[in-house]
Amino acid sequence: MTDNNIPQRPLILISNDDSIYAPGIRRLVDYVKDLGDIIVVAPEGPQSGMSSAFTCEGELRIKQYPDYNGAKMYSVSGTPVDCVKLGLFALVPRKPDLMLSGINHGSNSGNSIIYSGTMGAVIEACMEGIPAVGFSLTHHSIEADFSLSSGFINDITSKVITAGLPDMVCLNVNIPAKIIPKGVKVCRAANGHWTDGYVRYLDPMGNPFYMLDGRFVNHDADATDTDCYWLDKGYISVVPVCPDMTDHKAVSALSSRFDI
Amino acid sequence: MTDNNIPQRPLILISNDDSIYAPGIRRLVDYVKDLGDIIVVAPEGPQSGMSSAFTCEGELRIKQYPDYNGAKMYSVSGTPVDCVKLGLFALVPRKPDLMLSGINHGSNSGNSIIYSGTMGAVIEACMEGIPAVGFSLTHHSIEADFSLSSGFINDITSKVITAGLPDMVCLNVNIPAKIIPKGVKVCRAANGHWTDGYVRYLDPMGNPFYMLDGRFVNHDADATDTDCYWLDKGYISVVPVCPDMTDHKAVSALSSRFDI
Repeated sequence: MTDNNIPQRPLILISNDDSIYAPGIRRLVDYVKDLGDIIVVAPEGPQSGMSSAFTCEGELRIKQYPDYNGAKMYSVSGTPVDCVKLGLFALVPRKPDLMLSGINHGSNSGNSIIYSGTMGAVIEACMEGIPAVGFSLTHHSIEADFSLSSGFINDITSKVITAGLPDMVCLNVNIPAKIIPKGVKVCRAANGHWTDGYVRYLDPMGNPFYMLDGRFVNHDADATDTDCYWLDKGYISVVPVCPDMTDHKAVSALSSRFDI
Repeated sequence: MTDNNIPQRPLILISNDDSIYAPGIRRLVDYVKDLGDIIVVAPEGPQSGMSSAFTCEGELRIKQYPDYNGAKMYSVSGTPVDCVKLGLFALVPRKPDLMLSGINHGSNSGNSIIYSGTMGAVIEACMEGIPAVGFSLTHHSIEADFSLSSGFINDITSKVITAGLPDMVCLNVNIPAKIIPKGVKVCRAANGHWTDGYVRYLDPMGNPFYMLDGRFVNHDADATDTDCYWLDKGYISVVPVCPDMTDHKAVSALSSRFDI
């Protein structure tokens, strides 16, 4: 409550990994603007695949842009994690009630959580004690139509504002493209890996270079409880993500082998 | 076994995030060279704090250097994950039996796993089904003395070669600096976070920029089962790390709130 007893609207920090210029981040502002006051702090340039990378030595700069649909708009000359860290330090008037990331142009299902800059920002906010959700659409095009899921995005966001999330849990939400989603399913991330495929080229001087051409291989193709399964069925997948990467079961299992 | 029944030596892929030029990676070669044939594929430049970032669109180049102490030496113009991915694609004669990363110049205890390029390379190898271990010394200096832990590093590596690691588990090993370690303890990563401290500067044109000045805050300061605890006591900490970030407990807890 503020001094004059007008309830304060929730403060929502929004970032992404596709940059301040990506259509997806503006659609996210559009879809949740009724739920709070929004500050966008997004990378100045594309940061796909940047995971939880952050700038530990170089300098970072902030740019302000014209407000968009009621939201304050800033860029940071770094990674998605830099946006959250520096945004929290220099740009928010108080600790945000919620952090959102996206809407990503492309899927972050399966083990893409590990690589995703979208989720890097979400995990960072989670470790700062802020409820945080990443939204990704399974379509890479700059012209992807996000509107078919707008109601779902607003609903998920509203539920997180109302009831929060468990301590040290954030959400990785993936949205099937080109359809009105059939519903929402909380599930686990499919186990799989990206093949390390590269194409080898020769530059004009005759020197080789390589470009990634990997494909996701779903090791859980027969499972019916994964994000990949539900996305295939036309549902939005919601994977609870924990930033603590310790394998607690393995601690006791390995102690007898390694402890000295 | 090879055709003529001479047992093949284990093939060890080594990377890091401090670059091919860092002393720590050469010490790692020195300390494990008796255990197998070594191929080093390390970033061309420093990649600290790069987490699991990878190059999804740009080109990557490989450079070969003179062998070091029997090890093949290559650099990749990208991140630690790029080194593992492209190394596996283009540089190894067969799937490695083991992947090592480090020795990192600086601690990767607590939630630094999330940000660490050293551990990004390890997690990548783990997802490829290769037993993988990251070694970090709690000392940032380029002149850090790694030799006091050489026997422990060889011993841990030897144990992993002999018995492998559980499926989807890799190890984050941190080594106390400036002492002969008292022993080795398998434990969990301390829960904590880095404060988002920045120093604000003005450039010669009067425009502001920021540089990170964060400090790790250990939320588990009273716990006696964490890596930070054992490092403080003079022990090497071994944290089993799982690349699957799904919070499986939260799946059922959140289904009733979000499922539609």
